[in-house]
Amino acid sequence: MTIGVRRRMGVEERRQQLIGVALDLFSRRSPDEVSIDEIASAAGISRPLVYHYFPGKLSLYEAALQRASDDLAARFVEPRQGPLGARLLRVMGRYFDFVDEHGPGFSALMRGGPAVGSSTTNALVDSVRQAAYVQILSHLGVTDPPARLELVVRSWISLAESTALIWLDGRRIPRAELEVQLVHDFAALMAVSAAYDEEMGALLRRVIEAEPADGHFGDLVGRLVGLAG
Amino acid sequence: MTIGVRRRMGVEERRQQLIGVALDLFSRRSPDEVSIDEIASAAGISRPLVYHYFPGKLSLYEAALQRASDDLAARFVEPRQGPLGARLLRVMGRYFDFVDEHGPGFSALMRGGPAVGSSTTNALVDSVRQAAYVQILSHLGVTDPPARLELVVRSWISLAESTALIWLDGRRIPRAELEVQLVHDFAALMAVSAAYDEEMGALLRRVIEAEPADGHFGDLVGRLVGLAG
Repeated sequence: MTIGVRRRMGVEERRQQLIGVALDLFSRRSPDEVSIDEIASAAGISRPLVYHYFPGKLSLYEAALQRASDDLAARFVEPRQGPLGARLLRVMGRYFDFVDEHGPGFSALMRGGPAVGSSTTNALVDSVRQAAYVQILSHLGVTDPPARLELVVRSWISLAESTALIWLDGRRIPRAELEVQLVHDFAALMAVSAAYDEEMGALLRRVIEAEPADGHFGDLVGRLVGLAG
Repeated sequence: MTIGVRRRMGVEERRQQLIGVALDLFSRRSPDEVSIDEIASAAGISRPLVYHYFPGKLSLYEAALQRASDDLAARFVEPRQGPLGARLLRVMGRYFDFVDEHGPGFSALMRGGPAVGSSTTNALVDSVRQAAYVQILSHLGVTDPPARLELVVRSWISLAESTALIWLDGRRIPRAELEVQLVHDFAALMAVSAAYDEEMGALLRRVIEAEPADGHFGDLVGRLVGLAG
């Protein structure tokens, strides 16, 4: 019988609980609209007790963002088996799950501003981009990427961010369509680079050869040929 | 004979001179590394006199950014004649000129952070994106864009930003190559969207029909077909 009995939490447990409560609030509204009072109330503790664990709202925001960043980075991890297109599509599905769960907070963070733009928050955003970059390179089987491949992968990651932000602003296109589109965009950006560079051409051929004819990349190529014809 | 004679400037003239000096310094280094003392020294006036015209570094930074934003937005203006690919390429040339001239300041601004992330600076960055978006829609001859076209154009603008930022970080790929690549990326993102949407397909066909066979889009299609073969 624990109903009505408030168990006393340990320091680390209380910190983790506060981070969870704060992350939930920071996800659902722009962080500058969330007050310490509200976090205290949602956690069922007093405002001074929040300050006992975190010196201020920024440090609590940074701790919440650290947890969200770890979560998002983990969503780019995907077993190295099966066609690349199908792997990327599963990653995009988990990426949009995250964006969906943290919509307003994700928008506020990525659009920048005084409430969210500390050097710590910028470093956390960069760490997620770097984790995504490393994962995608490993799926391509590349350890020492040429500059043109680095550009394609990093700029595609930013394309996924901007696509997600535009989606959040009104959700006028079904997210499932955008997940597939981003997989196709990856192939398209690779192909544009490969059209003018031998090394990228060889890499693209290796990727395409491992794809099934009825996979995501094959379907796109078929449709594009139809469009050109 | 004006040598050695310091002419007294009017208020607005002095403000404009200070903005020009500040923009030059804010462009060449990260804004948080530029001090009011340095701006005063470069302008040949005293520190208190700088404060007479601008209440603080942020207001001077915002005024400099306003000038840079107006400049950048104007570079997207292009006569509505000739093939779209060639028009976009001229715009990209002027865009990379700007990025080249303002490299460190552009990077610091676009990567965000406390020195640059005020609501005014964010609004200025958004105003440039919006100006670019409006210009490109007008070149496509579209006044009421469907959601999928808006997504393609806006996400391509963010792709141009991230490509420029990656270029600034080491300049490992010739900028002329990236200017052409971004024109091709535009066509590729349009094509991916068009492959799954009738309305986008009709728009893409209209654009392609107006292109010469030896234009930028035609050359890309030829090479992609070669790559697929």
